[in-house]
Amino acid sequence: MGAAPELVRALAAIVGPEHVLTSPEELFVYSFDGTIERALPRCVVLPGDTEQTAEVVRLCRRFGVPVTPRGAGTGLSGGAVPAGETVVISTARLNRILAIDPANRVAIVQPGVTNLAVSEAAAPYGLFYAPDPSSQRACTIGGNIAENAGGPHCLALGVTTNHVLGIEVVTAAGEIVWLGGRCDESPGYDLRGAFIGSEGTLGIATTAVLRLLPKPPAAVTILAAFADVATASQAVAAIIGAGIIPAALEMMDRNAIRAVEAALACGYPPDAGAVLLAEVEGTEGVAAELASRVEEQCRAHDALQVRRARDARERENLWRGRKGAIGALGNLAPNYYILDGVVPRSRLPEAMRRVEAIAAAHGLTVANVFHAGDGNLHPCLVFDEREPGTHERVLRAGAEIIRACLELGGALTGEHGVGLEKREFFRWAFSDTDIENMARLRAVFGNDGAFNPCKALPAGTGCGEMAQRPFAVARAGSDAYI
Amino acid sequence: MGAAPELVRALAAIVGPEHVLTSPEELFVYSFDGTIERALPRCVVLPGDTEQTAEVVRLCRRFGVPVTPRGAGTGLSGGAVPAGETVVISTARLNRILAIDPANRVAIVQPGVTNLAVSEAAAPYGLFYAPDPSSQRACTIGGNIAENAGGPHCLALGVTTNHVLGIEVVTAAGEIVWLGGRCDESPGYDLRGAFIGSEGTLGIATTAVLRLLPKPPAAVTILAAFADVATASQAVAAIIGAGIIPAALEMMDRNAIRAVEAALACGYPPDAGAVLLAEVEGTEGVAAELASRVEEQCRAHDALQVRRARDARERENLWRGRKGAIGALGNLAPNYYILDGVVPRSRLPEAMRRVEAIAAAHGLTVANVFHAGDGNLHPCLVFDEREPGTHERVLRAGAEIIRACLELGGALTGEHGVGLEKREFFRWAFSDTDIENMARLRAVFGNDGAFNPCKALPAGTGCGEMAQRPFAVARAGSDAYI
Repeated sequence: MGAAPELVRALAAIVGPEHVLTSPEELFVYSFDGTIERALPRCVVLPGDTEQTAEVVRLCRRFGVPVTPRGAGTGLSGGAVPAGETVVISTARLNRILAIDPANRVAIVQPGVTNLAVSEAAAPYGLFYAPDPSSQRACTIGGNIAENAGGPHCLALGVTTNHVLGIEVVTAAGEIVWLGGRCDESPGYDLRGAFIGSEGTLGIATTAVLRLLPKPPAAVTILAAFADVATASQAVAAIIGAGIIPAALEMMDRNAIRAVEAALACGYPPDAGAVLLAEVEGTEGVAAELASRVEEQCRAHDALQVRRARDARERENLWRGRKGAIGALGNLAPNYYILDGVVPRSRLPEAMRRVEAIAAAHGLTVANVFHAGDGNLHPCLVFDEREPGTHERVLRAGAEIIRACLELGGALTGEHGVGLEKREFFRWAFSDTDIENMARLRAVFGNDGAFNPCKALPAGTGCGEMAQRPFAVARAGSDAYI
Repeated sequence: MGAAPELVRALAAIVGPEHVLTSPEELFVYSFDGTIERALPRCVVLPGDTEQTAEVVRLCRRFGVPVTPRGAGTGLSGGAVPAGETVVISTARLNRILAIDPANRVAIVQPGVTNLAVSEAAAPYGLFYAPDPSSQRACTIGGNIAENAGGPHCLALGVTTNHVLGIEVVTAAGEIVWLGGRCDESPGYDLRGAFIGSEGTLGIATTAVLRLLPKPPAAVTILAAFADVATASQAVAAIIGAGIIPAALEMMDRNAIRAVEAALACGYPPDAGAVLLAEVEGTEGVAAELASRVEEQCRAHDALQVRRARDARERENLWRGRKGAIGALGNLAPNYYILDGVVPRSRLPEAMRRVEAIAAAHGLTVANVFHAGDGNLHPCLVFDEREPGTHERVLRAGAEIIRACLELGGALTGEHGVGLEKREFFRWAFSDTDIENMARLRAVFGNDGAFNPCKALPAGTGCGEMAQRPFAVARAGSDAYI
């Protein structure tokens, strides 16, 4: 179904007719995100400022039509998919950097600005924006706020919620409010914190005050190869145990290395069972000292090879492999399904053994590319969906892996969110009371169920249902990032 | 009024009669916190475990009697004062450290454990708990969570919310729930984040999972003296601008230095207009390099004197002055009123000029001891309340100072909370819509107005009113800390 003509006319009166999209070709573009989930929106609106955004939200409420906010659509849990026949409100036109304030180390930006653009604008002042999802060239600050995005460099510096000081929000009720402010601390209830990571169900961020950090003058990247993931996990524990918190500490397993080397030839040892990519930062002296200590721990824990990038080019090359890893999985099989779970760091070796056993039991290949430092796993099940029955096996294996994370004392998602994907698993981790409390939080800004419906909370909690597959499988070659 | 005998009997049936306090002498002890505000509770209950805590909350709901949770009562905004004739629920018996888990770097503690006890228990593993309010010997983890406590070392490492991974909570409805978990990231709405800093109005934390950090092997403390606060503020800006984030960066002005030297003789230059206390951490090499860079910036910005503590004893001595500064104000006058406001770091010199001008206009002496690195001011108005009219002048000056912070783009409280004290100022910073949204958040866990009434939100937002002075003035010699 499309949108009623009177709704389209009323939206056009707010934003201008050229900023309401209604043709099937246009709607298709807004029907999916980084998952394979699909749902056509009624129409797409692109407001040009905060006031228009608020008017659009209020209008849709009056028409009784649900809405879905949308950034770049790079999410990996279906958060921006317009499930429930919604009007998509795109932040694409809210794409200005309003201020870079080096004295107070903040950037003030609109939500449609890409993550990387903030760091690029801050670079002339020696500053940067810390959260760095692998999709940072494409993903937007608004989406980062909705999903509380992480990234390889969040190990030492924390995720989005640690770097957003204040947000101007159009609430689900269509009101314009500021949450937090321009200072490090804010009085009153932490509505800012409650908003971040709420997967676009509380409102739409229309302006954000972001903390900028001084760019460390030096960074050293180290590649260490190991016989297997268990041994590499011991090295991770030893590095952290020695009191070093690297800026990043990423792991790839044998299958991921194979795929990356076949696609990108970054110089990872092709026969290693696991590689660790560690980055340390500081002044020249500090970075060099930390690098030596990381290398020492890797060698003491049976690294087959330890190599330090000698210059910026080598460093970029090492990172190119990590950042392109998911795309490279196409070399293993035509389809993949990226999981996102967390385990306590001490359970990492056990978790990896269970992931491999589950994949093997289902006759599936798994490649692992993940944030080892904080126990955030990203097993990627690779497969060919043309083989009959594979799809179901992948879904079953995925569910078992998430279940295993929970059994090991972990959590059902690390950084991708619940979205559409994890709603079926939600009750594994949360009681009825938890879910009722969360539903009340969802209502704080006036969400009556029609603001990004079918997301974040399980079915039957105020969400209009949709016909959907239980969760999402990505296509090889799509722009998915972890 | 006291508690009805049937309420006391029912409470005693839950916790044992020896854990329900009803005598006037006992109630007096629970009638105040670090402010001068006073209100006698109906009675005081000391539950022995989570289940008893939940039963007490449910019982009080059935009796229609409001409750106030209470840790050590060191708060500086009246959050633990039993305003509204409440039953105080003390966490004093919930004082066990349940686990120190070095592999996952977490401590699991009950809420009545003191802040410092966590770091002491973690010390054998080379770990510590980062937030360090100056009251850390006395204040409890439960109170820290309620107030989202900060401390001198929170500049680099962040405040309580950045270090509490999960909380077991008895909600205002009397239900037992877990918010967050044992891992760095947690799925779903950030109810953990919403709870932290909610000033005891959402529920009572009964267990907390705290992040532990590796204790840096070396720390260097530097004292730099300046002609005045404005010059010292320039040095602060220069240090931060040079990309150094010291572990702590504290400032004291002329009056604070005078008071500290008279009371404690820590070797601060007695004729300086301002001193900066900076601490840098890391390995020996890292700390030494950072220290040199801090010293360099201080010298380049007209420091009269720069001194590095040569050993642990000298370091402790320098910190003794900072940590004892508030107590030392008794040397200036018999009473003081500690304010807590925030300004953007770039407005620090201007803010300090305005604080001095406001104090002078009211004929008051002000001493400043504060977290310079993050713009969190603590002007202390010192006075003798026996002088007629002084009290009113102090209150007026305090209000003007907070107003000035807001005019400079800051916030009305940095780390002490709103509590009873800032309720009158709340509407300076927040709109009706903001307050309605916060009131809805307050209701998420079932607070119907009877759970820590009269706190955090302004009068007339579901809070039973009490006869109270507009805000709080502390007595000299009391155990107040900032």
